[in-house]
Amino acid sequence: MRPTAFPVIDGIEISNWDRQLFEQLHAGGVSCVHATTAVWEDARRTLDRLITWDRLFRDHADLIMPATCSADVLAAHQQGRTAIMLGFQNTAPIEDDPGLIPIFHRLGVRIIQLTYNIQNLVGSACFDLDDGGLTRFGRTVITEMERVGILIDCSHVGNRTTREAIDAAQGPVAITHANPRWFCDSPRNKPDDVIDALASRGGVIGLTLYPNFIGGAQTSLEAFCAMAAKLVDRIGIEHVAIGSDLACGWADEDLVALRHGRTQPDAPAASWPRWQAWFHGPADFPRLVDGLAAAGFTDTELRAIMGANWMRLWDQTMKTPR
Amino acid sequence: MRPTAFPVIDGIEISNWDRQLFEQLHAGGVSCVHATTAVWEDARRTLDRLITWDRLFRDHADLIMPATCSADVLAAHQQGRTAIMLGFQNTAPIEDDPGLIPIFHRLGVRIIQLTYNIQNLVGSACFDLDDGGLTRFGRTVITEMERVGILIDCSHVGNRTTREAIDAAQGPVAITHANPRWFCDSPRNKPDDVIDALASRGGVIGLTLYPNFIGGAQTSLEAFCAMAAKLVDRIGIEHVAIGSDLACGWADEDLVALRHGRTQPDAPAASWPRWQAWFHGPADFPRLVDGLAAAGFTDTELRAIMGANWMRLWDQTMKTPR
Repeated sequence: MRPTAFPVIDGIEISNWDRQLFEQLHAGGVSCVHATTAVWEDARRTLDRLITWDRLFRDHADLIMPATCSADVLAAHQQGRTAIMLGFQNTAPIEDDPGLIPIFHRLGVRIIQLTYNIQNLVGSACFDLDDGGLTRFGRTVITEMERVGILIDCSHVGNRTTREAIDAAQGPVAITHANPRWFCDSPRNKPDDVIDALASRGGVIGLTLYPNFIGGAQTSLEAFCAMAAKLVDRIGIEHVAIGSDLACGWADEDLVALRHGRTQPDAPAASWPRWQAWFHGPADFPRLVDGLAAAGFTDTELRAIMGANWMRLWDQTMKTPR
Repeated sequence: MRPTAFPVIDGIEISNWDRQLFEQLHAGGVSCVHATTAVWEDARRTLDRLITWDRLFRDHADLIMPATCSADVLAAHQQGRTAIMLGFQNTAPIEDDPGLIPIFHRLGVRIIQLTYNIQNLVGSACFDLDDGGLTRFGRTVITEMERVGILIDCSHVGNRTTREAIDAAQGPVAITHANPRWFCDSPRNKPDDVIDALASRGGVIGLTLYPNFIGGAQTSLEAFCAMAAKLVDRIGIEHVAIGSDLACGWADEDLVALRHGRTQPDAPAASWPRWQAWFHGPADFPRLVDGLAAAGFTDTELRAIMGANWMRLWDQTMKTPR
């Protein structure tokens, strides 16, 4: 592993995990990844996903370990392993029962995104025709997530629902993977009012490397890092991090199901986007760090963006299991 | 609570829990109960049962607390509370997936009975027409239960399957609730060869107070305690404990479903048996202790039978969660 002086955390990856990807994380000096463990799965199917992770943790203990708090990240960094924090990109796993939130917390889940791409019981999503805001159930979910210590993620959440979630939460929330909309005009990127509200409450936004949300693979590392610098100038260094949204190891046939679940059986076939040459896998983190350094960030600032900001937010929002 | 010098553990109760029952446990000086949390439930329905316990633990924290090891029993005894150890009376909750065993372990489950009243994927039960023995899947289940630290319970298990489970296990196993068949001739009670094999491997049998398995409500406390003394003479004091099988708070309509699940939709209506006056609820444990003392057991022996034997077995078989 390339030695890094500080722990590097990727705020989200949704890869189809195998040993080769863990080796690439190792090569990239990544000390922690928030790994998407469920998107469309109900509670029972989510148990299957957690069982798969049990097996991965046992079979690849030389490379990975479970993470439920920032201390695990520091331990992984010291040991040259990658700590995996489990999270959901949807509230589908909790179905209609807030009682499932402490259950999944005890099973190691520490981050849950309120909605994925379409409206659910909690609120509306970034691709919905109309954002009806955070529902009554959504407020219950936020209260319970904060009680047990699960970080609220608003990355794919609609803008109105996100604003209302920020207001409803007692503590800070996250956008683990999105960019400012002024950098790339996509419903998945966030307008200034949402980012400002997030930061004003102590939240953190993880800048995403997903090609569709940086303007395509032709966008340069320099342009991405300049965007990061401009955003830091606006909201402060402590509110910016990285959430690559790397989606490695999937076939094109998996994409439609990942995007739509069973909700759009007539969705046309789709292909994964081509990633930029300067960042297309877990081994590319050192290049990103170099790019940010070239954009003028100091070592202290790099440490914050590349991991320390996530750890501070996790310390504020996560609790250890009972 | 009646002060007891040592922790009293009830090796199993399958009651329909409410605050009144917790108060009766308190009145009976019971420091720990292994509470049946699932019988026929699949994995998803078992999550519902665990959610119910989450709520009970929160709402009645002055009376009860979760138990996952013997240290929790000692803490509960010191605090005058009752520690609740969660267990299943069937392997139905793990369906066909050994991967669910560590999942339920992390959710606090520490005891699983291999079969309930009818054959399942693991083996045969005491009421089966023919006992085909421990299955291949059953051997996998035993290996995984021992790996993660869940106690194997053979109370309702068929005799051949029980013998094969005792042989297959690396460590000791339990019969949490049954009596010697020579005391009361029922398929639910155990022949000498099964009890001898259990004890020879370090296991513990919890003597049950369920009327049907002591010969009916007319059986006296003295006869029950004499049975205990005779059994101790045969297999040794360290292998005998109590598992009352108290089933409080249920209506007669619940009995058929508890006994048969959905497997016997044509089962005739049934009524709960009348319990003996000298033991019919959680507050009756002091009377049982007095009866055993009158039968000649010393204080050290009473301590062993009433709780210490369970704690020793739990120390041998249970591990703390990762």
